[in-house]
Formats: sequence, C-alpha cells, structure tokens
Amino acid sequence: MDKDQRILLGHGGGGKMTGALIREVILPRLDRGKLRALPDSVVLSGLGEKIAYTTDSFTVSPIFFPGGDIGSLSVHGTCNDLACSGARPVFLSLGLILEEGLPVDDLRRVLESMAGAAQEAGVEIVTGDTKVVPKGSADLIFINTSGIGRVETQTELGPERITEGDEVLVTGPVGNHGMAVMLSRADFSFDFDLLSDSASVWPVVERLLELGPELKFLRDPTRGGLAATLNEIAASSGKGLVVEESAIPMDPSVVAASEILGIDPLQAANEGKMVAVVGKGHGKQALELLSGCLLATGASIIGEFRPSGPSGVVMKTRIGGARVLAEPSGELLPRIC
Amino acid sequence: MDKDQRILLGHGGGGKMTGALIREVILPRLDRGKLRALPDSVVLSGLGEKIAYTTDSFTVSPIFFPGGDIGSLSVHGTCNDLACSGARPVFLSLGLILEEGLPVDDLRRVLESMAGAAQEAGVEIVTGDTKVVPKGSADLIFINTSGIGRVETQTELGPERITEGDEVLVTGPVGNHGMAVMLSRADFSFDFDLLSDSASVWPVVERLLELGPELKFLRDPTRGGLAATLNEIAASSGKGLVVEESAIPMDPSVVAASEILGIDPLQAANEGKMVAVVGKGHGKQALELLSGCLLATGASIIGEFRPSGPSGVVMKTRIGGARVLAEPSGELLPRIC
Repeated sequence: MDKDQRILLGHGGGGKMTGALIREVILPRLDRGKLRALPDSVVLSGLGEKIAYTTDSFTVSPIFFPGGDIGSLSVHGTCNDLACSGARPVFLSLGLILEEGLPVDDLRRVLESMAGAAQEAGVEIVTGDTKVVPKGSADLIFINTSGIGRVETQTELGPERITEGDEVLVTGPVGNHGMAVMLSRADFSFDFDLLSDSASVWPVVERLLELGPELKFLRDPTRGGLAATLNEIAASSGKGLVVEESAIPMDPSVVAASEILGIDPLQAANEGKMVAVVGKGHGKQALELLSGCLLATGASIIGEFRPSGPSGVVMKTRIGGARVLAEPSGELLPRIC
Repeated sequence: MDKDQRILLGHGGGGKMTGALIREVILPRLDRGKLRALPDSVVLSGLGEKIAYTTDSFTVSPIFFPGGDIGSLSVHGTCNDLACSGARPVFLSLGLILEEGLPVDDLRRVLESMAGAAQEAGVEIVTGDTKVVPKGSADLIFINTSGIGRVETQTELGPERITEGDEVLVTGPVGNHGMAVMLSRADFSFDFDLLSDSASVWPVVERLLELGPELKFLRDPTRGGLAATLNEIAASSGKGLVVEESAIPMDPSVVAASEILGIDPLQAANEGKMVAVVGKGHGKQALELLSGCLLATGASIIGEFRPSGPSGVVMKTRIGGARVLAEPSGELLPRIC
C-alpha cells in the first residue's frame, strides 16, 4: 500500500482489500509467528494453572502525544491491568476500529509503536481483528487490547486483604500522562518538557511480589488519577485511608502544567505507575526492593489505613490541615486513555 | 439511572459517574460473580493445558436488527471464532465504547441481550471496560469481546491438514444475517420475514468433533460471506475447490431479498453457520452427526477439493456451466457485524 494511502471502507469488508491491509500493513509489524495463519482464534499452550485475563479499549485523543501514542498505550495499559493481579503479561489480542480516511501511514506508526512496546514488555500479540467504519463514525483509530497473564503470586491480591495499619505506596511521580495529553491538545508556544509515563510496570510488580503475603493489593491509577484509585481502594476495603500531600511525588513540570491548565494532577491519569498496599511496617522494605528500578524512580510511601474513622480518603495538606480527597465525579479529562 | 437518561461524557471519566453506570446498569445485567469486584484483571483457574483465544470488534449498524442486536452478536461472533479452533467457549471479556448521548435504555437492552446470549452459550463475561467518547466520535455503541475457550479436539484443525478429495460442508442456509441487517437499513413497506441467524454454533461443532481426525478445518463465514470464506480456505490450503451451486442451502426469503437489494447472498455475512472441511467420504457421516441438531438444519455437502487444477474456487452453476467464485474485493456491506 502506498505511503499516502488512506483507509477506505473496503479495507473492512472481509475481502481482498482487508487481506491486503492485514498482509501488507499489519502482519509485517506485529506477527511473531502466531498471527500469520489468521485463524479465527489461536490455540495457546503452557500457561499453567492460573491465568489473569483483562480487556481495555483505548480512545485517546490525540493519537500521538509526547511520550507515546495510542499503540504503545494500548500495550502498556493492558499489561498493567494484568500486573495488578500479580500476573506476568504473556499474550495480547488486538481489536482495531479504523475510521475511513485514516492515513495508512499513521496506522503504520501506531502498529510499529505497538510492536516495540510489546517486545519491551515481553508480550506477544497473538490474535486480532480489524473493522473499518465510515468517516464520522469513529475518530481516527480506537484500539481494544485484551490480555492473558500468568499469575506469579501465591497469595491472591485483593482489597479484602487490607487491614488497619497497612501502608500505601505509589511507584513514582503522578499526573504525567494526563498532563502530557492535555498539553498536547492545547496549543502552547512554550515547551513543558513533559512526557507521558506510559510504560509496562510488570518489572516493578515483579519486585514487589518478593514481599510475599505482605503485598496486599495493586491498582494502576489511570482514569481519574490517584484520587480515583485511592477512593476505590478505600471503598472496596471498607477502611479509612490517610495520605500525606507532601509525600505524593510530582514532577515540577506537572505542577506547572496543572496550574496553567487548571487541572488537579491528583485527578490526572497515569499509565506507568502502581499504587501498592503493603502490610504495616513493610513500606520501607518495598522501597528497598524498588531501589535501582528505573520504572520506580521516585517511589514513595504516601499514606496508611487507619484503625478507625469513616471510610474514605483524608489528605493531610502541606500547610498542616486535613481535607477529604474526593473521588472525581465526572469527565474532567475526556479521552485521556 | 432514570429511564430516559442518556450517556454523558462523565460516564467515561473513571469517577463517581462511571461507578454509577457500572453498578446500576452494567453489573446487574452481566455479573455472574467475577465482575463484581471490578478488578483490573480477573484470575481464572481450571482451563487445563490448551486454550483458544480470540478477539472481535462489533460495529454493526443498526444496533438492533431482526433476529438480534449488537449485544447478542458480540457474544455469538466470539464464541464462534473459538469454536473454529475446536474450543468450547468459556470466558468472555467486554469492551464498551459508548457515544455521548446514547440512550441508557438502549444500553440496557443491549446488555440484557448479551446476558441472555452468554447464558445460552454457556460462557461467562468475566472482565470489562467502558469508555465514552464525545458525540460524533463514535456511532452509538461499539463492542469488543475477546474470548477464551477450552480446546476439546485432539487433532489441531488447520488448512494444512486439507488434502485432495476432502469434502466441504456448510451447516445451514447462508446469507441470512447480512440480508436481515441490510433490509433493516432499507425502508421497505413489506415484510420479508427474514431474521439474522446470529447464534453460538458450539453445539454444532461439538457434534462434528466426533469425526476425530477426519474433521480437518472449520471457519465461520462472516464478513464477505461464503464466497470470502471458501476463497480463504482454498488460498490457505493451496488446493482447488469445486462447489455445486445447487447444493448451497439458501432460504427463499434470502433469495428474494438479494434480488431486490442487488446483493449476492454468497457475499452476505452469516453469524450462526460453520464451513467444515472433512476427510474424503466422511461428508455423509458429518451430516448424520448433525441430524436433529436445530442449529444445523439444512446442513449440506457443497463441494470438494480437487486432485489438480489451479487453487481458487470454481462453482458449477445450476444451468450446467462453471464459473470462478471470486473473492469479494471490497466493502459491499459496511458495518454488517
């Protein structure tokens, strides 16, 4: 297919044109052996007894942003959801919804980015599907990835395992992905030097698994940011959570961007961080396990579960006060992932 | 949520509104135990050694059509892709992309239809994701389902197993889904009494598996219809295929609709049929195995692989001639599934 070609409705028809799109554009970038035969489903062996399974759709706008694009994001997001179950990401599926008129060259860039992200994350894209919808019925490209992982933790992670005194960590500075995407939508004449943190954080989780049963729960703070995730954990555990504002790591560029955009960085999505709940007194050990791990640079203990009090999240502010860290209510940052 | 409410961007923001949508609209209709905890990924046990894995996105327009809707279709389509690997469908994931302004009541209907289809097919929807995009960035609702199945065939199915003399069956009349959807787009004042054949055909495949190694290959003739599927099989097996036009089962209503719409029913999608390749002389045995199976009513041996000649599909016509049954080239029937 030519360099300047655009996606046509015929590329989704299931005939010759679909075949050409798959053979000439998709397979050369993604096939590592299993996609080639284009079976309706792929047969997988050797996953062992316990597998983790997840799905995520990606509709981020713009599809290219500082530090990533919808392709790498769709690999990282799903790998990270598997990692939340203590599972090593192994296989991904790929569902493409393309808008008629999408430049084929943009599709190539997205697929190459996916391939790179998959290789780096150690996962294989093994089955896929491509649909094309008429111009105006989608926005350039939507990607769904589902994923299968091999569970590598002996003790299942879950909010029901959280008890009073447990400590809460975040594995690095927050808000970068959300801010980078929002900045790329705005039309600023100056440079913030702010990149999305989009990455597969399985290597971080693998280290945390060495805590054994003292690792209680993992969640990646994506849509709704750290604020949404902390509230979800508090709600699902039925415990109160107290966090220290000053302990929450944040890049100066995120703080600056948040002031200009008027967006709370605690509500901005992250795509390469984990929130981890560990047993009382084990936060320091967790930080030691993470030391030297580039993907966990800036990891910090940010709070703990309290013995009593209402469930919900209370934040001790820098100036010595305390406020409820509310759950974001609605759509402050549409199409952030 | 109220009966007349519409989907707002805030329902996709990952905050309170997303939580309300999931708890009030989605979980009551789909949760059978595993979805409730809303983990990032779900841990599954007991799948055994060999699993099949697939993904499919559904963008059908209109979302409700005679004989089905996008919800039931998204269950059937993925179950059938698993069945093509000789795998019993077990688990599904659900990725929803909703357009701002979608009536919540339409979403409820779609989810109830999914739940019914999943129950009938014996699968459980175990993990999910919901995104909302601004009005005009999608068309009402797109659904991705991925699926995991348990492989129940000893001999792996594949086009490389096809040899000369092998017989080709289709498990019932063709063209119904494509014609039903196209008719529902047109505005006819008369009634064709034509329903989509949308169904999970695992029960049909389960019977065919009794052929053992004499079952060589399975594919469901969806987009591009029987014509596309037969050409794919011929191309991937490297063999020539001769089919008898008079042996291809077709409902009279499909024939009538095809004449009015000007659409070749052999290029119209099916969502409840299988094309099966069986060993030479085993077609009759296959039909006997299928007898009494409602989902395989009208099954027929339609052709065989020839000892020599160019690869491709030749159709012996009713009037005694022969023509190449060409692969559909482009998008005759956009958004049919």
